[in-house]
Amino acid sequence: MKTENEALVRLFHDNPENAPDLLYLSGFMAPDALTLLEVRGTKVLAVSPLEYGRAVKTAKVDRIVDTASILPAAKASFGDGLSPESLIILSLCKEYGVGRVEVPRVFPVALADELRRKGLELHPSASAQVNERLLKSESEVEHIRDAVRITEDALAMVRERLGAASVGKDGVLYWGGEVLTAERVHVWVETLCLEKGAVAHHPIVAGGDQACDPHERGSGPLRAGELIIVDLFPRSKSSHYWGDLTRTFFKGKPGMEQRKLVDAVRSAQLIALDRIADGVVAGDVHAEVESHFNSLGYRSEVSGGTYTGFFHGTGHGLGLDIHEAPRLGRNVPVVLRSGMVVTVEPGLYYPGVGGCRIEDDVVVRAGGCELLSHFDYDWILD
Amino acid sequence: MKTENEALVRLFHDNPENAPDLLYLSGFMAPDALTLLEVRGTKVLAVSPLEYGRAVKTAKVDRIVDTASILPAAKASFGDGLSPESLIILSLCKEYGVGRVEVPRVFPVALADELRRKGLELHPSASAQVNERLLKSESEVEHIRDAVRITEDALAMVRERLGAASVGKDGVLYWGGEVLTAERVHVWVETLCLEKGAVAHHPIVAGGDQACDPHERGSGPLRAGELIIVDLFPRSKSSHYWGDLTRTFFKGKPGMEQRKLVDAVRSAQLIALDRIADGVVAGDVHAEVESHFNSLGYRSEVSGGTYTGFFHGTGHGLGLDIHEAPRLGRNVPVVLRSGMVVTVEPGLYYPGVGGCRIEDDVVVRAGGCELLSHFDYDWILD
Repeated sequence: MKTENEALVRLFHDNPENAPDLLYLSGFMAPDALTLLEVRGTKVLAVSPLEYGRAVKTAKVDRIVDTASILPAAKASFGDGLSPESLIILSLCKEYGVGRVEVPRVFPVALADELRRKGLELHPSASAQVNERLLKSESEVEHIRDAVRITEDALAMVRERLGAASVGKDGVLYWGGEVLTAERVHVWVETLCLEKGAVAHHPIVAGGDQACDPHERGSGPLRAGELIIVDLFPRSKSSHYWGDLTRTFFKGKPGMEQRKLVDAVRSAQLIALDRIADGVVAGDVHAEVESHFNSLGYRSEVSGGTYTGFFHGTGHGLGLDIHEAPRLGRNVPVVLRSGMVVTVEPGLYYPGVGGCRIEDDVVVRAGGCELLSHFDYDWILD
Repeated sequence: MKTENEALVRLFHDNPENAPDLLYLSGFMAPDALTLLEVRGTKVLAVSPLEYGRAVKTAKVDRIVDTASILPAAKASFGDGLSPESLIILSLCKEYGVGRVEVPRVFPVALADELRRKGLELHPSASAQVNERLLKSESEVEHIRDAVRITEDALAMVRERLGAASVGKDGVLYWGGEVLTAERVHVWVETLCLEKGAVAHHPIVAGGDQACDPHERGSGPLRAGELIIVDLFPRSKSSHYWGDLTRTFFKGKPGMEQRKLVDAVRSAQLIALDRIADGVVAGDVHAEVESHFNSLGYRSEVSGGTYTGFFHGTGHGLGLDIHEAPRLGRNVPVVLRSGMVVTVEPGLYYPGVGGCRIEDDVVVRAGGCELLSHFDYDWILD
């Protein structure tokens, strides 16, 4: 039987840049893989000589081990033929009397195989996830709020420039005498975010049918007369928390179909925002959005390999990871709790008409949710 | 016995942004995990509905599978209780008659455990590595050359501004009336790279003792009278290949110790550049650099937990990953071959004196190596 203590022995080996759990537990950002062993609340971080000095100064752990200093003894104990990573881990486990560890689902299989051959019990399991991350402290919410503020600044800049752009032949937008491309707006967004202390990974600025692929970043000339999805998600360089907002703009005079599409998405978002509260099941929020779209006659289907309608989740957790738990998706049984931070981003996509997505970030509270973003919903740039 | 055909069944499940092998094989960049099964030269890519449209347009594979379209049948075949990823993989393996796959060492252990329980033989092994990546084609070398050119532009901008900066009290540098900080230079570098089509991940601009931690990015005011390491490694946004160059600058009049340090590093680099050629063992290049430093009296040691001297590799492979094979490090038995691209970056670090690292990128050729970078070695900014 699993005792509480055993469940609290966790082992991580990853690059903190791609492993928010490890970043959260260690408080240490590095460009290479680190090893963290957490034994009943005591955190031991193993780093290479390259990282040692910086780790001593900044990591929030109980002990920092320089891998080079323990490798020779580890080799003598466990024999050659093992990877340095295995030697470090076996040596720490021996020192702390650990025979069984929980590891994240993405723990590297080769390392797992080696450690198991040496008798260490490895359990990839949800218990290795740092569930502390699900419920944000107020200072974490503040970090997200700061990232959201930068996102809003970038959105405001994009809207202002799309509004000020001139319209040339075939509706192509011009800025400063040159064709205004999605790529140019990407650079504007990335530059503005950098100046404000955040990295805007892969901003999406996609117009017309391009926007019907929700992960299409957009390319080529932007045009009047079509819906332009602008989805920005910068990560703070100091706190490493993310913001994530989307607005859909239209330069010119939208047609009735486009107006109805945007209204449908916004009303779906309002329904979700109204529903989210401590105690509500995540999947139920998504189901209400789906049934709202259905009731308005917006069908979701696949035809000829192309998905149309609403075919992604209503939202996702936001924190040290851009996509984290909880998901607001179909049948997700997670109960929302005060302190969870999620995006709320319904969307509709119909090639020929265009795509629309509207996204805000909220923190779940008792009896409702609090918007972390305060960007208005004006979308027609005449 | 392993047949050649069996060795060519490879399975990948990762985010192409962090998995250059997968990016190389699929030609498809996405922000989420993808599954790629390669069966004797045939590449099958499984992506979610979110990525499907874009994958059909841009991925360089033989077949693209929409995960949502095969999940229901996979569930019926293999039963509930398995993760969607396992179901997709089992279903593809069944279709292609695959019972044994090679996987990368970092394949997720939870997925591996599930697949093995269902009878799929998984071998984390070097054969799963995409060794094709080691030898760059001329068009790949061209991509790296382009990224290096952007790196040079950024280095030139930093040197010019450090040169033009004014010197205030205590040697602090000023730019436009404000203290010039490392953070400000980071933003300059990131912005310039973005405008030129590359993302400059974590540029290093570190002066004085800060520079003695080779992974310290640098923070606070930059000063005259100390060595300033500038290590820039932008990644092209279009090709996804990296450049990686370092220069060490000094604002003011360096002392004799600093001049000798810089001379020692540059002469070590020249020795390495002279040695690198098709047929040379990587570890031998590193050994020559080490013995050169020793012969000049530059000792490498650990004192009080601090590493001093030369305590990192002489270089590393460069391509779709910033650090890839081959490493030019101690005892590395890899034989360098024409078409390999490596950095050459000896360094010396002594708190009190400062740190110096000089780094260029080369492609290995018959009888020598070709410099991909053409940035001069002027370092004193008077």
